[in-house]
Amino acid sequence: MTTPAFDLTAALSTLRARNPLVHNITNYVVMNTTANALLAVGASPAMVHAGEEVADFAPIAAALVVNIGTLSAPWVSAMIAAANAANNAGVPWILDPVAAGATPFRRETSRRLVALKPAVIRGNASEIIAVAGDSSGGKGVDSTASSESAADTARRLARDTGAVVAVTGKVDYVTDGQRTAAIANGDVMLTRVTGTGCTATAIIGAYLGAGFAPFDAAVAGLATIGVAAEIAVKEARGPGSFQVALIDALYRLDDAALAAGARVS
Amino acid sequence: MTTPAFDLTAALSTLRARNPLVHNITNYVVMNTTANALLAVGASPAMVHAGEEVADFAPIAAALVVNIGTLSAPWVSAMIAAANAANNAGVPWILDPVAAGATPFRRETSRRLVALKPAVIRGNASEIIAVAGDSSGGKGVDSTASSESAADTARRLARDTGAVVAVTGKVDYVTDGQRTAAIANGDVMLTRVTGTGCTATAIIGAYLGAGFAPFDAAVAGLATIGVAAEIAVKEARGPGSFQVALIDALYRLDDAALAAGARVS
Amino acid sequence: MTTPAFDLTAALSTLRARNPLVHNITNYVVMNTTANALLAVGASPAMVHAGEEVADFAPIAAALVVNIGTLSAPWVSAMIAAANAANNAGVPWILDPVAAGATPFRRETSRRLVALKPAVIRGNASEIIAVAGDSSGGKGVDSTASSESAADTARRLARDTGAVVAVTGKVDYVTDGQRTAAIANGDVMLTRVTGTGCTATAIIGAYLGAGFAPFDAAVAGLATIGVAAEIAVKEARGPGSFQVALIDALYRLDDAALAAGARVS
Repeated sequence: MTTPAFDLTAALSTLRARNPLVHNITNYVVMNTTANALLAVGASPAMVHAGEEVADFAPIAAALVVNIGTLSAPWVSAMIAAANAANNAGVPWILDPVAAGATPFRRETSRRLVALKPAVIRGNASEIIAVAGDSSGGKGVDSTASSESAADTARRLARDTGAVVAVTGKVDYVTDGQRTAAIANGDVMLTRVTGTGCTATAIIGAYLGAGFAPFDAAVAGLATIGVAAEIAVKEARGPGSFQVALIDALYRLDDAALAAGARVS
Repeated sequence: MTTPAFDLTAALSTLRARNPLVHNITNYVVMNTTANALLAVGASPAMVHAGEEVADFAPIAAALVVNIGTLSAPWVSAMIAAANAANNAGVPWILDPVAAGATPFRRETSRRLVALKPAVIRGNASEIIAVAGDSSGGKGVDSTASSESAADTARRLARDTGAVVAVTGKVDYVTDGQRTAAIANGDVMLTRVTGTGCTATAIIGAYLGAGFAPFDAAVAGLATIGVAAEIAVKEARGPGSFQVALIDALYRLDDAALAAGARVS
Repeated sequence: MTTPAFDLTAALSTLRARNPLVHNITNYVVMNTTANALLAVGASPAMVHAGEEVADFAPIAAALVVNIGTLSAPWVSAMIAAANAANNAGVPWILDPVAAGATPFRRETSRRLVALKPAVIRGNASEIIAVAGDSSGGKGVDSTASSESAADTARRLARDTGAVVAVTGKVDYVTDGQRTAAIANGDVMLTRVTGTGCTATAIIGAYLGAGFAPFDAAVAGLATIGVAAEIAVKEARGPGSFQVALIDALYRLDDAALAAGARVS
């Protein structure tokens, strides 16, 4: 549990200079907001999920985001095909196991995807606990456990799978099983807007696509959305305007504001 | 056509205290805005539509929302499986027969779903007329009839099916076949934003999930979105900002503002 | 390459007076924003994609929009069925070949749809080059070529297919193979929001549905979104608020503002 050496100073400008093509297989609820968040941080998003084309597309992308928010059998097959194609091409990918503990279908799908070696797994506490095989107690897509209570489980999951694991909540934790970073940014308003966790996952995917190591990508991604959320909440009159202001804040955020605002330890 | 006894005084605070998990099988167009509206009124939304999991998920939810806006054969099967699972578990559900009269596929799907005994059916005038088996004359998803002209049809549909029927329009009508309430809230701007009817349906679903009786849930839900729309339109410069302001207004609305603004008779 | 004779003076008021029902088979990412843009310009949008109903729905619509942004095999079949039904009923349709060059599946789907004689094809430079059978060099859904460099290809594609071809970029070009119009409206912020190209396509579809000839519909549609974007960017603090302000601007735009702002040559 040492402090990470990762320096955020040039993270966002590096991401924007590289403008990575990010392949998303994500849920219907967040496709628009996730694509706009990726554009705002300087990535080039593409939503591609057909079994007929995912294996052609993943290798030309710089990173792949797999999010199980709205599942169906053809999409699960496409997720697996895309993950395999990404692995074969050396393209890093991130898994968002939305509501992993809610149904047997989600538990099984999460298990199959984790076995395909994502570079990063990001979820709320209930989701990470479910993916680790423990009883989750989640409430649909919402967590009923604190991120702090899941930090030990996250470390074990990281060691077992080789993935960097990010648990988001009041404080976010990123761990590779050895090191753990805590990111104390964000705002409770993030829990009042659908898909902000999915957006965090996508932004981590953008950093992966820009060449950051998985641990650094997760820290940078969570700091980026967290600092942006703190700016956005000041411009918002509720969750509707917060969702809009969050995209604006991500777009306007620069290296200096990110480094000044990030509370990473 | 007696005046309903339902008292809105503590409706929203009760809904928020209970924070019901609402299972939605709804259309692609509105998933994001519907989820955000449910969060804004204090519910916990989940969008789950796979045949592999709907029957596992519906029983753990507090209410189920079925909306046929963007149909396909696998989704129809999932809607039926979810409705059956909800019924078996005593979970109330609401049907939104979007564009019910537009195609034979929609008429047939609506007929099959109505036969599964939703607690509430909400639609515009053309949709309610189509569900009742009369010629509808709708224009795609838009109504070509007034809600007033459909009030008698709604009462008959309620008596025939046992559902509470809500017809929305300039004035909204809620009926169980005996009692009828009229809600004279809202704004014409609601017709300039896609999916506001779907959002009304989802909010009624949230009240159902919080334990309100179907008639009361429908009255409370329509008053809630109607009063919020009146607040939102004052903050909007057009339908784009109105859609955002509506979520903000739903979030900020409280018992006092709802009771003061509601025009229920 | 003569200047088009088309006069925008009454375009928007004509569209609003006719309130055309526009059938969309479009991608998940933009369904909400596209529907709202269509409502804002005065059309009545419907999103209908099931194989069971597209052939019933297309003939009752005034125009059909086919957008391949998020493809899958059942949707391709539905697109083909809808295009055939539209053709048989004399309903004009427009094709948006999103990321046409990115995968073999998209190239093949685009080829099949172009063969079904759309009235208009709208894409960015890489997409139009890919549809014309040349090497595209696109980056996912984004273009790597300028619209100017694709103008000759567009003319050839128009002559080969009989469609009016619109290439959008810094300057937009509309051609029927003989005449070419250039529309120099818009703002770079349009490239920072997902789906603005899809929205342009849908608005052209609305003009088609209002009875405009394909060439005139394309010019009017691109001028409409371009002028609205110039208004919206002044109200925006970033791409989030720009997306919202664009819908507001489309809604508030009138004949006089359109004619005054349009730079068509």
